[in-house]
Amino acid sequence: MPKVAIVMGSKNDFATVKPAITVLNGFGVESVVRVLSAHRTPEEAHKLAAEAISEGIEVIIGCAGKAAHLAGVLAASTILPVIGLPIKSSTMDGLDSLLSTVQMPAGIPVATVAINGSENAALLAVQILSLKYAYLQEQLWNYKEVMRQKILSDDNALQEELNNEKT
Amino acid sequence: MPKVAIVMGSKNDFATVKPAITVLNGFGVESVVRVLSAHRTPEEAHKLAAEAISEGIEVIIGCAGKAAHLAGVLAASTILPVIGLPIKSSTMDGLDSLLSTVQMPAGIPVATVAINGSENAALLAVQILSLKYAYLQEQLWNYKEVMRQKILSDDNALQEELNNEKT
Amino acid sequence: MPKVAIVMGSKNDFATVKPAITVLNGFGVESVVRVLSAHRTPEEAHKLAAEAISEGIEVIIGCAGKAAHLAGVLAASTILPVIGLPIKSSTMDGLDSLLSTVQMPAGIPVATVAINGSENAALLAVQILSLKYAYLQEQLWNYKEVMRQKILSDDNALQEELNNEKT
Amino acid sequence: MPKVAIVMGSKNDFATVKPAITVLNGFGVESVVRVLSAHRTPEEAHKLAAEAISEGIEVIIGCAGKAAHLAGVLAASTILPVIGLPIKSSTMDGLDSLLSTVQMPAGIPVATVAINGSENAALLAVQILSLKYAYLQEQLWNYKEVMRQKILSDDNALQEELNNEKT
Amino acid sequence: MPKVAIVMGSKNDFATVKPAITVLNGFGVESVVRVLSAHRTPEEAHKLAAEAISEGIEVIIGCAGKAAHLAGVLAASTILPVIGLPIKSSTMDGLDSLLSTVQMPAGIPVATVAINGSENAALLAVQILSLKYAYLQEQLWNYKEVMRQKILSDDNALQEELNNEKT
Amino acid sequence: MPKVAIVMGSKNDFATVKPAITVLNGFGVESVVRVLSAHRTPEEAHKLAAEAISEGIEVIIGCAGKAAHLAGVLAASTILPVIGLPIKSSTMDGLDSLLSTVQMPAGIPVATVAINGSENAALLAVQILSLKYAYLQEQLWNYKEVMRQKILSDDNALQEELNNEKT
Amino acid sequence: MPKVAIVMGSKNDFATVKPAITVLNGFGVESVVRVLSAHRTPEEAHKLAAEAISEGIEVIIGCAGKAAHLAGVLAASTILPVIGLPIKSSTMDGLDSLLSTVQMPAGIPVATVAINGSENAALLAVQILSLKYAYLQEQLWNYKEVMRQKILSDDNALQEELNNEKT
Amino acid sequence: MPKVAIVMGSKNDFATVKPAITVLNGFGVESVVRVLSAHRTPEEAHKLAAEAISEGIEVIIGCAGKAAHLAGVLAASTILPVIGLPIKSSTMDGLDSLLSTVQMPAGIPVATVAINGSENAALLAVQILSLKYAYLQEQLWNYKEVMRQKILSDDNALQEELNNEKT
Repeated sequence: MPKVAIVMGSKNDFATVKPAITVLNGFGVESVVRVLSAHRTPEEAHKLAAEAISEGIEVIIGCAGKAAHLAGVLAASTILPVIGLPIKSSTMDGLDSLLSTVQMPAGIPVATVAINGSENAALLAVQILSLKYAYLQEQLWNYKEVMRQKILSDDNALQEELNNEKT
Repeated sequence: MPKVAIVMGSKNDFATVKPAITVLNGFGVESVVRVLSAHRTPEEAHKLAAEAISEGIEVIIGCAGKAAHLAGVLAASTILPVIGLPIKSSTMDGLDSLLSTVQMPAGIPVATVAINGSENAALLAVQILSLKYAYLQEQLWNYKEVMRQKILSDDNALQEELNNEKT
Repeated sequence: MPKVAIVMGSKNDFATVKPAITVLNGFGVESVVRVLSAHRTPEEAHKLAAEAISEGIEVIIGCAGKAAHLAGVLAASTILPVIGLPIKSSTMDGLDSLLSTVQMPAGIPVATVAINGSENAALLAVQILSLKYAYLQEQLWNYKEVMRQKILSDDNALQEELNNEKT
Repeated sequence: MPKVAIVMGSKNDFATVKPAITVLNGFGVESVVRVLSAHRTPEEAHKLAAEAISEGIEVIIGCAGKAAHLAGVLAASTILPVIGLPIKSSTMDGLDSLLSTVQMPAGIPVATVAINGSENAALLAVQILSLKYAYLQEQLWNYKEVMRQKILSDDNALQEELNNEKT
Repeated sequence: MPKVAIVMGSKNDFATVKPAITVLNGFGVESVVRVLSAHRTPEEAHKLAAEAISEGIEVIIGCAGKAAHLAGVLAASTILPVIGLPIKSSTMDGLDSLLSTVQMPAGIPVATVAINGSENAALLAVQILSLKYAYLQEQLWNYKEVMRQKILSDDNALQEELNNEKT
Repeated sequence: MPKVAIVMGSKNDFATVKPAITVLNGFGVESVVRVLSAHRTPEEAHKLAAEAISEGIEVIIGCAGKAAHLAGVLAASTILPVIGLPIKSSTMDGLDSLLSTVQMPAGIPVATVAINGSENAALLAVQILSLKYAYLQEQLWNYKEVMRQKILSDDNALQEELNNEKT
Repeated sequence: MPKVAIVMGSKNDFATVKPAITVLNGFGVESVVRVLSAHRTPEEAHKLAAEAISEGIEVIIGCAGKAAHLAGVLAASTILPVIGLPIKSSTMDGLDSLLSTVQMPAGIPVATVAINGSENAALLAVQILSLKYAYLQEQLWNYKEVMRQKILSDDNALQEELNNEKT
Repeated sequence: MPKVAIVMGSKNDFATVKPAITVLNGFGVESVVRVLSAHRTPEEAHKLAAEAISEGIEVIIGCAGKAAHLAGVLAASTILPVIGLPIKSSTMDGLDSLLSTVQMPAGIPVATVAINGSENAALLAVQILSLKYAYLQEQLWNYKEVMRQKILSDDNALQEELNNEKT
């Protein structure tokens, strides 16, 4: 069973992060969910990243707000792909988190998704895993098809609503 | 041999994109480099993404400036991981490219790297491939070590320079 | 009867988009209202744009938030004028939607209106149609006059309120 | 012969605006090119907009930088579609021009294109005119095809360059 | 009695603008308060500015949100000092209003105050008037002294609160 | 003879500030030009503002970059109208200067003009002075007319250039 | 007992500033808490800074919103380290306060912490004091350890919650 | 002799950082200047911070660009005051560096100075050291006085230049 670590910088971020766990579960991907801070528990954060491969982890998702160093700090200690999920904090509308996560210097990439985009962080992890776990590819196509059907059914529902309004 | 597609929206972007090719070459990863525009050649762009798997491509890097839709448009037609490389254009200092690339709606992630961060786009691709192609992991650790040695030797050189200034 | 397509990227955008339909109705312009996503239903979106002319559509309004690619993607597949309505999402106050919509590369314009400016998207469509359907010009002058009268009557009401406060 | 007015707020903007004239010429659209300022010649600007229809003008392009009021001021005095071209000035990288042009209040739309996007301002004008002057539609499809061929030939040229480098 | 015109672009702005009237009243300055839009009633706005001097108006305050052209448009038709009050609208946190108001081209200044800073708009008007109406200077010094006393008494109150907490 | 103080925070700003002196000279307004820093010479800055009235100064222009406190600090010590001229520094494109100058708290207005808009700072001073020195009004109307004629002659010149190109 | 002055520009800021007092109390550092405005009580603000050393104050924290000049103005009159705490106001999400506080010109540094980061302002003061008052170092290490334990216990709690959900 | 560590994330930053060394030298403060990256040499960076106290270092200055994590990462491993110097990189005009440095979460402050403000980083370090090393206070007052005299002599020079121009 493929395994992804989700690390958040504060337990307050859990509500925002939770959809990522749900998505991973839906794909049958195991998630190791941790609260670890780049600044308050730097050694534990480093340890998680440095030992991730030996723990069977294959992708790491780092979730943090404000000066969001977590994903970058994890990426410094591993060669696994690290996904950065910038979390909107109480000021600056997430721009600080986004820039702190995405503007990484050459040599240490962080695969950044949208501000508060936890569902996408998980989906990106699954896409990455699907290179190795080919059975995930079919699930991803299904997921895409379900999204497509959802839009089409929303579209149909809207047509009906608008038609009903006219009559 | 693992294979990555690098798609840029305009041939003008080539100078910025080129380091990505160099990095991939260094890791022995084949690169398919294309000029294809989300807006000027939408069908060819769609075709590349839709047929990428059957062409043996495992990661796609989409590089574009301004309203940088390319990575998102490619991601819409594949379940492969798509890396977005926002390119700085003549106005807005790359902020437009960054937001257009990273702020993807739920369901269609784009793994965004820093503005003009082509080296990181390639490294992220290699990290992703390394899940499947385990031999890349050692190369990635080597790459990390070389970067580390470069910093340490820069550090030494600086100490010497400063010492020489004093005497 | 002139016909305008209004395409929104998500049914959640309907509340914001609705005033556009009301404005078009007021001018006797038929509206085809669709939920179609550039990323979740790229082929349907492409199809709508590519077949718009043969369906008698003369202007397309694309409405989307975040990395708002919809209007640009529709514009890629048609030569009809495409109006972009950037929708404010939960972060970045609409700046992401605005830049993703307006900063289109040379060759594929999107006629962008204000963030959440659905009334203006519709009015712009009517102005465009009025070149061909000359009877709309008079209605547009009337609309302008009604707005003018509204301001003047607001002005009068305010004078009265202020006078009453004094006495 | 269809006719478009291009109004710029300062003669300094002419270099940026010129590609718009070239595009219009290429489509056989007559252009009336004026230097008129919303602030320095408000009456002349008003007069141009108010009399545009009687002068046979069908679309107006307003080009201005900084607090770019010109397009909005023109739109206030006409019911013709007004295209806003925000021009990058010496500070703020065009963000001031963009927001001043696009964030119009309800009732007075300005069809805004990218900062310094003069080619797109002209193309949008042609798209708008093509509703009435149907022969322009074919030219627009041709224009799109030429752009497509340009990308494809750039793509081919790049393949060759890269192949040559390898050998 | 000195006279100031306060012009707002929409009656919705009245709640934000009202403190300006209160301040002017407090200084015994007459205020003419109008709802006039640069875009919906351009001629009335022009007329107000052009005739302001003959109406005995000596300072004009223009208040508007979004693409806030009002103060600039008024300034175009008068040589009186025009104060710009940018009003925060529903998106962009007032940045659009601020830039549209303050970034005026050379030749047509607008004296811009803080976003939603209506009290300051009025105080600035009084400061300007005080050059001619010297008796206002003493009132302004009094106003400054009252503010100073307010801070000092707030300071005292805080000391007491903190002392009480300790005991 | 009316008198304006121009205070700049650093002699480096002189090149940007100089057009203000030229404009004031043109109107026959005396200028006292000083280099005084809110942070390096706080007492001298305070003294200038506090004694400005007794020195016959009637308007103060404060010019500064970065965390541009100068205009606000001067305004704290006088009841004269203070004009703030934000100067673009080497980073942030003048946004820091603009916000530091314009976002003054209630009670202490600074009449802010465009970033680097020294001509407008001077013109605003003249407009303010013209309330008391009525003869300046005619000069201001002349100045406006000269600007208008400049635009109209630029417009004519452009027509000729374009006509010559055609033939 | 070491002593820190906390100066806020308005009593409204007290709720945001209060955690700083609590932190200082926790470290046994005396706090002098004042409401003093750079603009409304410039002389009192200057006096506090100029006399701080003789009053036994060793660090000053300046807290202000909007055009937040307070910390810079205090720094101008002392050689003590001045910490700037930018406070989020009703518009611009604190960006104005941040830039006005941090972008100080060469020669007058302000040690700026995060927007609304009052706890960090106090901690930074304690870190600075700990150079001289060595016993504070141990308390700071304890504080760090408590934070670390808090994260680890949050991490444990989360593991339990997630385990409970599974079963 | 007091000792400050200056750590830069890349040797490319040396030109920007150098004035900090000069300032420290001028005050007789020893500087340990290092090139160490939060991401490329995380362990060495951690070691420097963790051992700083035992090495006799009393203040640390962390200098970095883009997603500038260095100062925060150093602060995580020490209780010494850490000064953050955000360095402007090739995109985003330093805003990314500033936000990544200053927006630190509660518990781990970074004393941030202006973008590229290396002189101020050093001065702040000296101010901090002056609490313990009282002799530095006099030097700091001297430094302030020299700055003051520089402004006053610039002011005099300007008066002469302007007088010469007149005659």
